[in-house]
Order: sequence, then C-alpha cells, then structure tokens
Amino acid sequence: MTDYREMWAELGLDLERHDALLQALGSMYGSIYLSQENRPKAMDYFDFVLGEIHGLRVQELMDHKAKGGKVVGLYCVFVPEDLIMAAGAIPVGLCAGTQFSVPDAEEVLPRNTCALIKSSFGFKLGRICPYLEASDFVVGETTCDGKKKMYEILGEYHPMYVMEVPQKKTALGRALFLDELQGLKGKLEMETGVSITAEKLAEATSLVDGKRRALQRLQNARKGRPTPISGLDALLVSQISFYDDIARFTEKVNALCEELEARVGRREGPFPADAPRILVSGSPMSAPNWKLHRVIEESGAVVVGEESCVGTRYFSYLTGKSDGRLESRLKAIADRQLETHCACFTPNDERLEDILELASGWAADGVVHYTLQFCHTFANEAVKVERALAKENIPLLRIESDYSDEDTGQLKTRVEAFLEMIRR
Amino acid sequence: MTDYREMWAELGLDLERHDALLQALGSMYGSIYLSQENRPKAMDYFDFVLGEIHGLRVQELMDHKAKGGKVVGLYCVFVPEDLIMAAGAIPVGLCAGTQFSVPDAEEVLPRNTCALIKSSFGFKLGRICPYLEASDFVVGETTCDGKKKMYEILGEYHPMYVMEVPQKKTALGRALFLDELQGLKGKLEMETGVSITAEKLAEATSLVDGKRRALQRLQNARKGRPTPISGLDALLVSQISFYDDIARFTEKVNALCEELEARVGRREGPFPADAPRILVSGSPMSAPNWKLHRVIEESGAVVVGEESCVGTRYFSYLTGKSDGRLESRLKAIADRQLETHCACFTPNDERLEDILELASGWAADGVVHYTLQFCHTFANEAVKVERALAKENIPLLRIESDYSDEDTGQLKTRVEAFLEMIRR
Repeated sequence: MTDYREMWAELGLDLERHDALLQALGSMYGSIYLSQENRPKAMDYFDFVLGEIHGLRVQELMDHKAKGGKVVGLYCVFVPEDLIMAAGAIPVGLCAGTQFSVPDAEEVLPRNTCALIKSSFGFKLGRICPYLEASDFVVGETTCDGKKKMYEILGEYHPMYVMEVPQKKTALGRALFLDELQGLKGKLEMETGVSITAEKLAEATSLVDGKRRALQRLQNARKGRPTPISGLDALLVSQISFYDDIARFTEKVNALCEELEARVGRREGPFPADAPRILVSGSPMSAPNWKLHRVIEESGAVVVGEESCVGTRYFSYLTGKSDGRLESRLKAIADRQLETHCACFTPNDERLEDILELASGWAADGVVHYTLQFCHTFANEAVKVERALAKENIPLLRIESDYSDEDTGQLKTRVEAFLEMIRR
Repeated sequence: MTDYREMWAELGLDLERHDALLQALGSMYGSIYLSQENRPKAMDYFDFVLGEIHGLRVQELMDHKAKGGKVVGLYCVFVPEDLIMAAGAIPVGLCAGTQFSVPDAEEVLPRNTCALIKSSFGFKLGRICPYLEASDFVVGETTCDGKKKMYEILGEYHPMYVMEVPQKKTALGRALFLDELQGLKGKLEMETGVSITAEKLAEATSLVDGKRRALQRLQNARKGRPTPISGLDALLVSQISFYDDIARFTEKVNALCEELEARVGRREGPFPADAPRILVSGSPMSAPNWKLHRVIEESGAVVVGEESCVGTRYFSYLTGKSDGRLESRLKAIADRQLETHCACFTPNDERLEDILELASGWAADGVVHYTLQFCHTFANEAVKVERALAKENIPLLRIESDYSDEDTGQLKTRVEAFLEMIRR
C-alpha cells in the first residue's frame, strides 16, 4: 500500500484522527463487506477503490491540481457534474456518511440536525476529509433548510458557492434554476480560466450520461431472481459513483453488469431466490453509511433497489436533446436535474409514482422507508408514501435513524418483525 | 358573554375539546396577563379581544361569509394581507401556538417537527380552530421544510394554495416571487369572483401600512426608560394583529400608543427603570405561546422588543412607492415582503444587522435568542447571531424550547443566571 501521509499532511489533515478514521472504516468494511458470500468477481475493483478511499483518488486530484486544474466539491445530485467537467475541473462528492465526525460538528451546529449534515460539517472542523481539503471550492444548494444554513457557516471555513434549487416546478422556478446554472457557469469560468463551450459541455454530459446508463444497467440486473448482487454491493457502487474517475468507473460498472447479467442467466446470486426482496426509499446514504442495508441483508432479505439520491434519483433520467447550442445544452441539463424527484419539491408526487413503479418492477415484497433523523422533507413525505403504499397493499416499514450504532439492535428487531410479516 | 356554541357547531368544531381549550386558555391568560401590575389602561381592548378569541371575531368572519365574502387563512408574514383584502376577502392568521393541539398532530406528522407546525396541523385534526374551519382556503408558503411539507398533508384535509418564497434574493428570485403573487392574485380572483384593481390594492396596502405604522409607533414607545409596557403586553398586541379587524385594531393600537407616550413622559411603566432590558430574537411566537416572555418578566427583567415575525419582522418595513398601476403596486408589495429578514433566506445577514440595531436602539442589556425546537433555519442562524453579538460584547442567551411546560423550570434557572450575569 502506497504511503499517502505526505500528501495528507500537505492537505493539512489532522493525521492522527485521520488514521483513526481510516482504521475504523477499514475494520467496518471488512466485517460488513468482505464477509459477504458469493460476491461478483467484478466487485474486486470497488473493494480496491474503497480500500484506497483517501489514497489513490485523492492523489489523482492532486496531480490534476498540480497541472493547474481545479477540484470542485459537492454534496448533492442537483449540482451538475457535467457543467463542472466542462470547465476542466473535477467534481467530487464530499465526505458525509459517518458518526466519526458528528461530535466535531455538534460543537457548532444545532444537535437536532441530520447526521449527514453534521458529518459533512464535522469533516471540515476535524480536518479529516482530503476531498474537501483538496477542493478549490464547494458548490452547495438550497435543497433543505439544514444544508442551506450549514453552508453559510461552512463558508466561514471553506470557499463556498451556493446555488438555489426552486421548490415548485413552475415556469419561473425552472427559469430560476437555469439562471442559477448560468451563475455557476460564470463562477466556474472565473475560477478555472476556462471558457465553457457547447462542445466541452456536450462531451461532459455524454460522459455523465454514460455513467448514468451504466448505473441503470446495474439497477436493471437487480430484477433477476435471485438478484445477482447484494444491496450492500450495489449501494457501494452508487456511493463510489460520486468520487471515482468517471470514465474508469463507467467501464468498471459495465464490466460488473456483464458478470451480473450472466449470473441472472444462471440464476445465481448471493441470496436464495425466495429471499424477501426489499426496496429501500428515502434519505440518501453516503459511504460508509451501510447500517440499514446491513441489518436487512443480515436478516436474510435482499435489497433490490434504492429510491434515493444515492440510487435511482441519481441515474434514472438522462439528459434530453438540445439544439446543440450552449444555451440549449444548459437548459437540457437544468431540465434533467429537475427530474430528480427529491422531497425538497412541493408537491413531489412523482416520487410516489417512482416508488410504486420500482416496487412492482423489481418485484419487491416490501418497502423500507428510511429517514435520517431531523430530515423534515423525507420525514413528512413518509406520511404520503405510507398512504400511497397502503392503497396498493404493499407492506411498508418506516425507519428513522442516524449514524450512531445505538439503535442497531432495535433496527434489527423491527426489520426482523417486518420480514416475518412479509414471509407469512 | 355571548353564546357562540351554535356557530362553533355549525363550523364543525369538536365542542367538547374546544371547551377544554378555551378553559385552559382562559386560566392561562388570567394567571399570566391579568396578574401583571400597572398595565396600560388601553390594554383593556386587547384583553377583550383575547377573551373573545374564538367568539366575536369569528362571528364577524361568519357575517362576512353570509354576505358572500371569503375568508383566507394564513400562517406566515410572507403571505400579503393586502392582496387578499383587495379581493374583498378577509385574511386571518390561524391558530398555531399551543401544546393543546400538538398530540393530535403527532398522530400523523413526524414528532421531530417544530411545535408551531405541529400545533397548526393538530388544530385541523382536532377540529378546534374556528378560524381554520371558517377559512375558504389557506395560503401556505415555502419558508421552511417543515411547513412546506406539512402543507401537502394539510391539503388532504383542507383547501390549500401554496406560494413559493425564493431562498436567494437574486433578480430571478425576486421575479419568481412577483410571479407567485400574480398567481395568488389569480387564485383570489377566481375564488372571490372579484377583480383586483390598482385602486382596491392601493386602499388595502394603505390599511396594512397603517397597521404597520401603529405597530412601529408601539415599538418606538418601548424605547422609554422605564419602558411603558411589558413585553408580554406588547407581544399580545402583535399576536392579535394577525386576526383582528384591521381598521379597529389600528385605531386601538394608536390609542394605546398615546397612553404609552404619555407614560414615557411621566417615566412610568410596569417595571422599574433599572430592570434589565431584553431583546428577544428568533422563531415566531403565536398566541398563546407566552412562555419565554413570562419567564423573563417574572424574573424581573423586561422585554423591549421581539425581532420576530410576531414582532419587528412583521412591521418594520412599509410598502414602497409605485407608479400607481397594478403591476407596479404588486411589485412594491413583493419587494416589501422580501424585506422580511427571515432565516429562510441564504444569506440573511440583514437580520444580524437588525438585531444589533435593535439591541443598541432599545438599549437592550442582553439578547435572548429563541429557537423553536427542530426549527433548522433559526437554530443554525443562532450560531451567526452568537458570533455577531460576541464581537459587540452584547450578552446572549440561546434558548431552544417547545410548547410544553416541561422545561419551564430549567428555562427559569437559565434566564435567572443570565440576568444575574447582566446585572453584575
């Protein structure tokens, strides 16, 4: 294993705490992931990437910076990767998924904030996220009150740029979002010195759509019975999609899909064909937030899909046609981003339709609705999800959780009871 | 006292629970308000209005409806009363401030929701708010995640219309808000059958600005030392401003101000001149949420201002000039509403300036920042308020609370310790 300590020191990381983080992560990964049986061979690559989580990829970013390139951090799928790439910058999803950094954040932020936000902010205070430290600036968005206001405080510690996401999909709301993309384009051009052209944007959008297509293909393979891949492994692939090199990642996902499609043909998978099939829906799960999937799959069920920003909301829609001009390409990107059926919108009934469609298309025996504690948008939408699923007689388990391990036992009990109900 | 039971029954109220609510409210009001000493004589009117909280005013609304008029409910200062009035409808702030209705709401809404939202929604489920039942529809807004998503669920029980408030004050954000006012105008015209003209709107804006001027005058009188009115009484006036008849209310507030100004001249007030002067800032306090003011004033300090939507954020700005045409008048209203320095905006640094200005202008000895538990926007902004006040050496106490009485003892202890620190 390469020694990255010099690079981490250069980035200003707190090396001692960072060591402790990597050690905790490694042992967690070992016990959750490497203990799984009958994994696809092509998961080797993703194991390698996870093993190198703060190493090789950060080195690539640093090499890019050494050549004068920029790195742009982000926390949310509404920030368009292709626009960032068209400026010759590398977009990278930032660290956000662990209890490890939550106590740091609670020194400043309100405790009644969701774990994802606290974890993100804590990584900055604790100086333990090399991606954040490597990023020239972070692009935030206004998708929830907690992040929107956290970004203001984060701005006192790190260069920030916040773009507005509208709350209603009116014509003016769409125009506002397009205007925000124009603003981001200006910011990117200023920071990188690169002019974003229609050609560069077309190329970047094509790369991102290629990644989305590969992830769609992976999701499609999960229809198999038995499903050819565990939910844990599929979730990991989605998590890695936010920070890996896009061309390499797309190729590796497609290679994985080939193996999975062959497995489907052979009726082979990590779980028996009659294992209960679960759709997980709700708040996003950043790496290493594997708690719920672990509990579900250790209880003998298999997760066949994530209706989540780290899941279908990220890759279900491709960019629509444009007339080729820059304006038109930007508008196509804006329209695509607004097809993300996030609970930040009011109303957001398309998400209910998505859940029903995924539940039926993937032959799910039940839905587990996952809400990060204090996430108002998804917590309220759970009420509507419950009513929509009840109408279709699809069993639902509503889970609210954070990143701590305190409720794991209780989660297990509830999930097991839910599965028992389903099996009857 | 008139018997309104027939009217309440007609409105479909749960009479038994409603009786219990009024009884609890009456006894609370007696012990908190009527026990105060040396109150302005002109508070008699507001005592009367509070005593008739679900009586006379509701009767007036019903009389208006009997003549074919409409009643439009609202929960937030971003909804423009004048636009509603210009359609010949009566705007009315809805019930929201009591623990009484919170358990009802918790049957449906996430428990980790702020008390104001739970109380509002609980009033509907429990059928105990005559204003809500009398309203032909409710105009909601997107000022926070909790309300935004609660409105979707409330829409399953009551006619709703939701307007978007932008999150950044960009040119497009302002255009979007103006467009939302146009949309609301169309909705009002459709519901009332009344055409909103420039003249009607001018008249309505002038009435609302008159109310705002009266409240500004009241706030100004609180500069006196001793301040001529308790914070509890001033808060009550602000709370009543949301549902009383506007012309009568304005007249009564001006009468109160005359008395207060005479008191200031005589150096007369309910508290000694050396009582610590406190500015309360933060989440709004709907009637009967009097908990914090009560604790502060029973501890011997006096509240000299509320930097709150039930306070200065409601009345500090008047409507700017227009060229007289309808479009221009609407734009003036949109611009004025966006001068509400609510934590829903990012950034919202004007609010920090407001707090500093109020603290110095009203010679506050300290600021108590009040956050409703689970109110992400104000809870996060408290961090910035704390930093801004520390720079100016203004003492700050951060309080997070709900509508229950469980923390009253703890609040008292913290407030007393704060006052002791100030007095030193």
